[in-house]
Amino acid sequence: MSIATTELSIFQQNVAAFKAIVGESFVFTDHETLDVFAKDETENLYFLPDIVIKPRTAEEISAVMKICNQHKIPVTPRGAGTGLSGGALPHFGGVLLSFERMNNIIEIDERNLQVTVEPGVITEVLQNAVKEKGLFYPPDPSSKGSCFIGGNIAENSGGPKAVKYGVVKDYVLNLEVVLPTGDIIWTGANVLKNATGYNLTQLMVGSEGTLGIVTKIVLKLIPHPQYDLLMLVPFNDLEKAGAAVSAIFRAGFTPSALELVEVDALRIVSKYIDNTTIPIGDDVAAHLIIEVDGNDIEVLMKEMEAIGTVLMDFDCGEIYFADDAQQKAALWKLRRRVAEAVKIDGYTIEEDTVVPRAALPALIKGVKALRTQYNFDVVCYGHAGDGNLHVRIKKPGSIYSLNNPDVIPALKALFELVKSLGGTISGEHGIGLIQKEYIPIVFDDITLHIMRGIKKVFDPNNILNSGKIFDAH
Amino acid sequence: MSIATTELSIFQQNVAAFKAIVGESFVFTDHETLDVFAKDETENLYFLPDIVIKPRTAEEISAVMKICNQHKIPVTPRGAGTGLSGGALPHFGGVLLSFERMNNIIEIDERNLQVTVEPGVITEVLQNAVKEKGLFYPPDPSSKGSCFIGGNIAENSGGPKAVKYGVVKDYVLNLEVVLPTGDIIWTGANVLKNATGYNLTQLMVGSEGTLGIVTKIVLKLIPHPQYDLLMLVPFNDLEKAGAAVSAIFRAGFTPSALELVEVDALRIVSKYIDNTTIPIGDDVAAHLIIEVDGNDIEVLMKEMEAIGTVLMDFDCGEIYFADDAQQKAALWKLRRRVAEAVKIDGYTIEEDTVVPRAALPALIKGVKALRTQYNFDVVCYGHAGDGNLHVRIKKPGSIYSLNNPDVIPALKALFELVKSLGGTISGEHGIGLIQKEYIPIVFDDITLHIMRGIKKVFDPNNILNSGKIFDAH
Repeated sequence: MSIATTELSIFQQNVAAFKAIVGESFVFTDHETLDVFAKDETENLYFLPDIVIKPRTAEEISAVMKICNQHKIPVTPRGAGTGLSGGALPHFGGVLLSFERMNNIIEIDERNLQVTVEPGVITEVLQNAVKEKGLFYPPDPSSKGSCFIGGNIAENSGGPKAVKYGVVKDYVLNLEVVLPTGDIIWTGANVLKNATGYNLTQLMVGSEGTLGIVTKIVLKLIPHPQYDLLMLVPFNDLEKAGAAVSAIFRAGFTPSALELVEVDALRIVSKYIDNTTIPIGDDVAAHLIIEVDGNDIEVLMKEMEAIGTVLMDFDCGEIYFADDAQQKAALWKLRRRVAEAVKIDGYTIEEDTVVPRAALPALIKGVKALRTQYNFDVVCYGHAGDGNLHVRIKKPGSIYSLNNPDVIPALKALFELVKSLGGTISGEHGIGLIQKEYIPIVFDDITLHIMRGIKKVFDPNNILNSGKIFDAH
Repeated sequence: MSIATTELSIFQQNVAAFKAIVGESFVFTDHETLDVFAKDETENLYFLPDIVIKPRTAEEISAVMKICNQHKIPVTPRGAGTGLSGGALPHFGGVLLSFERMNNIIEIDERNLQVTVEPGVITEVLQNAVKEKGLFYPPDPSSKGSCFIGGNIAENSGGPKAVKYGVVKDYVLNLEVVLPTGDIIWTGANVLKNATGYNLTQLMVGSEGTLGIVTKIVLKLIPHPQYDLLMLVPFNDLEKAGAAVSAIFRAGFTPSALELVEVDALRIVSKYIDNTTIPIGDDVAAHLIIEVDGNDIEVLMKEMEAIGTVLMDFDCGEIYFADDAQQKAALWKLRRRVAEAVKIDGYTIEEDTVVPRAALPALIKGVKALRTQYNFDVVCYGHAGDGNLHVRIKKPGSIYSLNNPDVIPALKALFELVKSLGGTISGEHGIGLIQKEYIPIVFDDITLHIMRGIKKVFDPNNILNSGKIFDAH
């Protein structure tokens, strides 16, 4: 399918119409602008859109979509471009919709503990705004300082806090959506419980911008916990670190973060951010980063101590407690920069595996076996408390491309391993463009037929972010 | 549509086939059995099925569905028949599928804090089984002693604990589903985070048995809290009780239950269960029932005290603390039996309104105004912490029927009020048969068109629980 090339004149014909809708200065066809939107954080992929539109309202988007739907022009919605699965890349050209102007926090409803936002609000900006009112929006992807909440909805993002507080889907109450046809709907109501019709809200979350364009988001908030404690725990055996994770929960604790990072990853990131604060020992294979939070500091201290006792059984080393806000920030900074640092270091291929928590040691063991078999370097890190392990692969000369014969067999083997452990191929990054080839590993033809059918109900002309997750036809 | 009457011979032709699939003794056509399945807890509705089948496995159901799909025989799945929206009633006759034989707890996975069950397991049986392992499955509808977990999935049930722990949808990780075509799929994976394809799991939850037949359920569990404290707080003003609810959350507390019950409801239930334990004062309009839970008893006591202080601002009366397990059980029994008792007392029409929490006082005030306008008696009670208020109406001579001119205008006005307050028409009971007339109040034609489209993707011949939620066409 190559709508973009065969019908290019359609864009030219409609540029004036688009400008009439959103204003002259928010429609772009110059190469410099198009180039910015041709890439995201997904490896080396590059696809130029034909036109970039920066709308301000749902009504503007509706008018744009009506034209695109009529002329079957491909449309790709894009948040901040921090995605790791190529979901926002305009691989069929066409119109790219950027939400950077739709960045209002419309209302923080303190009486109902809800917030209504536009999709272009940066996640951390939202978190800080509600924190000022004593409220908490927990989902915190590593890119929270730059990613948009709309993109988080599209990918059903997680982050370290998900282990206690859940992922994006657990906070979305209601969505205003512009359908590919240009119709505008609300998916639900601003309520905590809803047994009224199909759950279109949850269907939209994680649908990677393929079913509709989210233009307003109503999120549930919770009271912000007053205290948190953070520790870094070294292990000289990676599998034992993995095994310790499930033991913590089995002992009755639910940390507010439970991250696993292979020591190589910490060493690499230490090179790039000049780490002088956080101790990284010599005989270490991996660390767990464990946080607990709550409203009673003494209870938290007891909890930390008890978790420490659990960890002893897994031969952990000396525990480092982040004593103050500065040390905590330093440790989190180290963790959050891992993805960026290891990518610079050549680990360009990132997979987002997720398994039942207790299967982590088996997954880690399996990854190491694949390393030998397929001859790649690998570092693992991620949200171990959720069983969500990011597997970063380095293979000299092999960067991501959609048909790279160097990496496809290794990734296939990895995903088959994940599937065999009861897991799936993406925990929080989405399938997008780069994983769709592997989706038959986890969904059979019948299930994919159902998903394609749903896509067609929302998008009869297959214009919206087509060819992401699966090929629609 | 009257498939049942026009094509009755199809059932006769297929009885032998059904018997060959599930066994002679699990296919019923005798009136006595059919009569049992012609009604549920929804008022006085009565629809006889043509045939009752009690399968044992997903494979049996698959084989049954293939026949039904081929001959366009209506199929109605049914749990324990405790539903309050007529969702399990075979209003087109045809095949009724009962899950009573599919009642195994397949695996309690203590390492991953998950449980895999069949749909016919009674919710309380499941809760007790996991509690023995120190684990907690929180959703607890009033009917938990008899309802099936499969029905809870169909209706996205809640219950008192939802205010802290969420509803059924928050615990469902993965579902095995027999599609109307007879195909068997799994909707997801047994993982805590999933960004792999459309969220069919969440689409199934709350779809009221219209999209597929759930045959295995994987649920997330959490550690069981060690302690809980319970209090009963009287108010002489119903609206003030409603206003106190949102103040509790705003003060930073998240109780594990926060119920509101009008005093009339407690008086009525006291008649039927011989209440001698729980004090019900004279000058009281309503009570809040407030529970907190956690692992540190001192923290909980402090929390209760602080909540009490918040409530003073709303002129609450003397607080009754349930001191021991027996008193707690007595208070919960009183609350759980309300629906049953007020129904016996003539309040036969139950609506399941839900609004943003802070809109509760406005909802209560509006209900009272409607009472005057439409001349009915009413008692209100429910899960106030979630903004979920059950409104029970008594109007001499008027029981539920699908076209009762006595009640339709009043219910329409009630639902329009709910909508105007940002709420919706069902929080946890579902739309089923009896509320579908009102669904256009909350969803426009476009949204309903999308829902009907989804129905058609799953059920092209419109055989599975057709005519529930909306007319599928």
